[in-house]
Amino acid sequence: MSQHLVLNRTGDKMPLVGFGCWKVDPQDAEDTIYNAIKAGVRLIDGAGDYGNEIEVGRGINKAINEGVVKREELFVVTKIWNTFHAKENVRPTFEKQLKDLGLDYVDLYLIHFPVPLKHVAIEAAYPPGWYQPGKSDDIEFERSPIQDLWREMEKIAESGAAKNIGISNFNVQLILDLLTYANIKPAVLQVELHPYLQQTRLVEWVQKQGIQVTAYSSFGPASFIQLTDDGKTAEPLLGHPVIKEIAEKHGKSTAQVLLRWSLERNVAVIPKSMNVERTKSNLDIFSFSLSKDEVAAIGKLELGLRFNDPFSYGFGLPLFC
Amino acid sequence: MSQHLVLNRTGDKMPLVGFGCWKVDPQDAEDTIYNAIKAGVRLIDGAGDYGNEIEVGRGINKAINEGVVKREELFVVTKIWNTFHAKENVRPTFEKQLKDLGLDYVDLYLIHFPVPLKHVAIEAAYPPGWYQPGKSDDIEFERSPIQDLWREMEKIAESGAAKNIGISNFNVQLILDLLTYANIKPAVLQVELHPYLQQTRLVEWVQKQGIQVTAYSSFGPASFIQLTDDGKTAEPLLGHPVIKEIAEKHGKSTAQVLLRWSLERNVAVIPKSMNVERTKSNLDIFSFSLSKDEVAAIGKLELGLRFNDPFSYGFGLPLFC
Repeated sequence: MSQHLVLNRTGDKMPLVGFGCWKVDPQDAEDTIYNAIKAGVRLIDGAGDYGNEIEVGRGINKAINEGVVKREELFVVTKIWNTFHAKENVRPTFEKQLKDLGLDYVDLYLIHFPVPLKHVAIEAAYPPGWYQPGKSDDIEFERSPIQDLWREMEKIAESGAAKNIGISNFNVQLILDLLTYANIKPAVLQVELHPYLQQTRLVEWVQKQGIQVTAYSSFGPASFIQLTDDGKTAEPLLGHPVIKEIAEKHGKSTAQVLLRWSLERNVAVIPKSMNVERTKSNLDIFSFSLSKDEVAAIGKLELGLRFNDPFSYGFGLPLFC
Repeated sequence: MSQHLVLNRTGDKMPLVGFGCWKVDPQDAEDTIYNAIKAGVRLIDGAGDYGNEIEVGRGINKAINEGVVKREELFVVTKIWNTFHAKENVRPTFEKQLKDLGLDYVDLYLIHFPVPLKHVAIEAAYPPGWYQPGKSDDIEFERSPIQDLWREMEKIAESGAAKNIGISNFNVQLILDLLTYANIKPAVLQVELHPYLQQTRLVEWVQKQGIQVTAYSSFGPASFIQLTDDGKTAEPLLGHPVIKEIAEKHGKSTAQVLLRWSLERNVAVIPKSMNVERTKSNLDIFSFSLSKDEVAAIGKLELGLRFNDPFSYGFGLPLFC
């Protein structure tokens, strides 16, 4: 199978396997990204909110400067955070992110969440997270329509500073509305996807609209052990007997099976690992494929279990209801 | 407890129990509505899509003309259908609905679904349903943003021809966006709610925004026996042992328990019955209340089972994903 997804409008090729920068400690980020690129990674998935964009950018630039890779061979993704949705804040935030990354352009710029949080000035706190600085009781919204934000995203796409634009954590109702006014259709939707939260109807409908899908948290609970109760108590997917049996049959790791499962659905993946050998292994998922029966067996693991939910974090915002 | 919910902006009192006109045969509608009002019903929940608005209006006007009730004692609700979202179609459609009803105003006008279907001229087919006339293969969308539609709804509210405006079948992401641009906040959200689909997080969050909630399909599968496979195969709620036990304890019917369950959550209900005695019984839910334990027992019946889903009807639109 191809190792890329083709994006609408630009025809750009987005690698099916990338590297996710969430929870990469800034202290480790430069080396981690540099080594990941050396190991063959060609898509770097970052975000302003991850708090490591400067260091991720250093890793990217080190790899470019040392001739490991050319800029045009990399596909760099970043995301605009919730506090920057107001139209006057979009471009300045994007410019800061470009500067932090040390790049002239990114390949894909995503709306991180469809949640318009009250603005926090970059000088006051960056990245600001969900709460207002000094407050931790409840989140505060601002009145920034997604339509206004999308218009600014479109301008950034038209300027070429982001080759493609897209969305993350959007559901069907909001996408249906976005498609009524978008002059530039989203190239990509990035959402939580793993065997415990397969979202098959969402994935198929979105793909039918010409929007490619990227899965985050492909390993399910593994990413959320420190963050949510569900992450602590759910049976780890990386050790799940059904996944293990399939992995053993193919002589692959359970991680490889979980990533390959997304590829079978034409969904891109962005695993993170702090171990270069595992990063190499995560890239090596084109040499085998899952049978229909194996996909069906994984299909039965569905639990409707979502880990990355503002509600789980205590914000009282049931964003996926 | 009060028999009304108070609506934001106008302070209008919306009865907690009404009569839902969905699937009332036009042949029966005039008598049914007239008799329901005579039996004490004060809220009539209709929709252009129900195909019985002329006859429902006759029933209402007969009751008014005969002095059974005054217009201002009634709370009349109707909804704009999916094919009329384009801004130029909203007011003419509303005017047609008012004329069909034979009324000067309605108390609440709702967006029926957040689904912008391609316009069908009233002369071509009315109500048009989901499909284009003569086509039954796939639904067709048009590019009508909810924001434009809401602006027209606001104008209707400002004109007083609809005292209040609201939404139906919207989820949190779309409501969160709507609240960023609404000059008039929705007064009501109407959604499917019953013990098999409790949507507790949605209900609580929406109420916290100052929006009242109305439950449709309070009896769950009973409304969907002819419509969906789930409706056929799910255990009827009206005969469910847990509901039966509670009903027997209170000397009430299972229908009364299911309606009272919504009232315990400050959610209005709009049952339909073709039998006047049952309609009277549906209104008689203020003389008892459910204990915490009873509410908890019903809470355990949750199945995440949604019956009124365009996806179940074969349109391939996973509206609630």
